[in-house]
Amino acid sequence: MVFKLYGLPMSTNTTRAMICLHEKEVDFELVPVNVFAAEHKQPPFLSKNVSTCCVFLFLSKLAPSHTNFNYLCCTCMQPFGFIPVLEDGDLTLFESRAITAYVAEKFKETEPDLIRHKDAKEAALVKVWTEVESHYYEPAVSPIIYEYFVAPFQGKEPDKSVIDTNVEKLKTVLDVYEAKLSSTKYLAGDFYSLADLSHVSETHYLMQTPCASMINELPHVKAWWEDISSRPAFNKVVGGMSFGQNH
Amino acid sequence: MVFKLYGLPMSTNTTRAMICLHEKEVDFELVPVNVFAAEHKQPPFLSKNVSTCCVFLFLSKLAPSHTNFNYLCCTCMQPFGFIPVLEDGDLTLFESRAITAYVAEKFKETEPDLIRHKDAKEAALVKVWTEVESHYYEPAVSPIIYEYFVAPFQGKEPDKSVIDTNVEKLKTVLDVYEAKLSSTKYLAGDFYSLADLSHVSETHYLMQTPCASMINELPHVKAWWEDISSRPAFNKVVGGMSFGQNH
Repeated sequence: MVFKLYGLPMSTNTTRAMICLHEKEVDFELVPVNVFAAEHKQPPFLSKNVSTCCVFLFLSKLAPSHTNFNYLCCTCMQPFGFIPVLEDGDLTLFESRAITAYVAEKFKETEPDLIRHKDAKEAALVKVWTEVESHYYEPAVSPIIYEYFVAPFQGKEPDKSVIDTNVEKLKTVLDVYEAKLSSTKYLAGDFYSLADLSHVSETHYLMQTPCASMINELPHVKAWWEDISSRPAFNKVVGGMSFGQNH
Repeated sequence: MVFKLYGLPMSTNTTRAMICLHEKEVDFELVPVNVFAAEHKQPPFLSKNVSTCCVFLFLSKLAPSHTNFNYLCCTCMQPFGFIPVLEDGDLTLFESRAITAYVAEKFKETEPDLIRHKDAKEAALVKVWTEVESHYYEPAVSPIIYEYFVAPFQGKEPDKSVIDTNVEKLKTVLDVYEAKLSSTKYLAGDFYSLADLSHVSETHYLMQTPCASMINELPHVKAWWEDISSRPAFNKVVGGMSFGQNH
């Protein structure tokens, strides 16, 4: 059975899931959801899914008055709301990192082993650094992406104070990454894992902003980024990651 | 070998890990870290761990000028900074949800099976709802706890606007929980899992604030809370969870 992934090819959270599916060479159908028109809050998308998970209840409750990018999730400046959603037969999943963990587990015998299922310590370190991406890296990068890409898309000027605040946070996180990546090739060890994969989509947009220099000035982080962004799985999705703008 | 857990018995993140260890009846030594005195940024604590993980590099970089609860992590109003840290032999882990996932996996054959390792779909739903706790519930609850408990501890008045904003967010999340818990006994299904466990510590503090009524007014959420807060594993840690204040 072919997986269905509801989302948008420009969404960092959607592409996080897509990259994982491509790494495992899993057939899937991307079902576009037009968040700009709030299509994800309309039937039949709503009726299809509401019985199997609560994501659309979230949508209708958390963002009742927002019909486009004005909606920001309660965690961070995540511009894409509640996509992606993965359907695997009768199983419906949301939250991109839960989706990637499910796909990585289901196809764990297919290389690359993104969760290091044969080594409990390596697997634990994958989880640690996936949490770091989720709790430190993404909350700094997302507002920067929002200001450079989404604000102009909405006809607004980027808010420099938001950018500056998050650049400071990101500097600190990247210093930690530089130290870690000077001792291991990838974040969780000398193996590519979900921890690295989780960074690719948001870093792709970051590298199209003036903040690219923050990555390029750190030799180990730069080498890591060049490595993880050159993988075939990412190259299959990068063409769709555009707001049609240059910065 | 006995696990060592560095942390504080009043910390929600530390007790998240402790509850998981108690659920699995794992022997561990709690090594108190006085975050009030910034002991966690001093040798020998620093030198012990810096070679094996980057948590203390995070500490020194992210919070160089903060020596107490003034420090807030970059994700949310998390008052306890970068504890807990778990040592299992030569493995050092940080991030409480990575620690609980490691402990639940290592002792998966011991009941309760917190990760549902025998059922891939149930396991996936545990991950989804653990992400929901991390990305929606905790970011709403933590600022409320901070204002009611930490601000008075620092001699400040609680900021009513912060409370009000997050009460609104929490209402929405709890409505989703009420709907979910009307169809299954626990968040990920009819089984207690890491998804439920992750909520216990922060909800304990929430229930000592006026926001307790938000839980008590929702019958399924109330029943769920009464269930998960009556487990012996939580009762082993609840005595240490106090700021010595009533609200």
